[in-house]
Amino acid sequence: MSKQGPECCSPLVAEPLSGGQAADLARVFKALGDPVRLRLLSLIASHAGGEACVCDLTDVFELSGPTISHHLRVLREAGLIAGERRGTWIYYRVLPDVLGRLAGVLAPSATGRSVARATR
Amino acid sequence: MSKQGPECCSPLVAEPLSGGQAADLARVFKALGDPVRLRLLSLIASHAGGEACVCDLTDVFELSGPTISHHLRVLREAGLIAGERRGTWIYYRVLPDVLGRLAGVLAPSATGRSVARATR
Repeated sequence: MSKQGPECCSPLVAEPLSGGQAADLARVFKALGDPVRLRLLSLIASHAGGEACVCDLTDVFELSGPTISHHLRVLREAGLIAGERRGTWIYYRVLPDVLGRLAGVLAPSATGRSVARATR
Repeated sequence: MSKQGPECCSPLVAEPLSGGQAADLARVFKALGDPVRLRLLSLIASHAGGEACVCDLTDVFELSGPTISHHLRVLREAGLIAGERRGTWIYYRVLPDVLGRLAGVLAPSATGRSVARATR
């Protein structure tokens, strides 16, 4: 998988995923398959300015700093967020292209981007 | 979670997910976080007529029948597919509403369904 996440795909309702596409996508969905990680992603994305530092995130959860850091690392390795150190803190932002690609893969065929079957 | 999958949400980039929303969504994303299940979902959705029987699916994988059945059960319990027995076989079809809701949750804000911020 590229650093920026999976590069595929047509909507999965349009044509069968290849083994490689499925493996790439499964890694990202697995990263999303945890409630803390989903909330972190959502908190970062919806934070003022589209980015959040760890200091904005830790107070929301009753979890240790290392646990939060672990979940952030999983999101980063899945290509869903990027972090940049500025001064004391690392600031995270969501990579919207990856989310957009995932949304495209899950789109039902009626709204799928690459489905152009005539129905008559 | 309802039998039909999570009932939420605005795009996760638009506002923070609640704990309950995140738990519901994480269950479905976890079901998608496996390459075999993604391929099964894709094979079912893209099969002629929008449904596939187990007999259409088992030959594609070098996996035992019980393993395929396990993965189909996970997809069913996540509300992603429904099965109907007709004669010897169970026929599966994808539930497009759930996929559509997931796609909506992942949509970047610019294309989010419930984001209607004026930009001027």
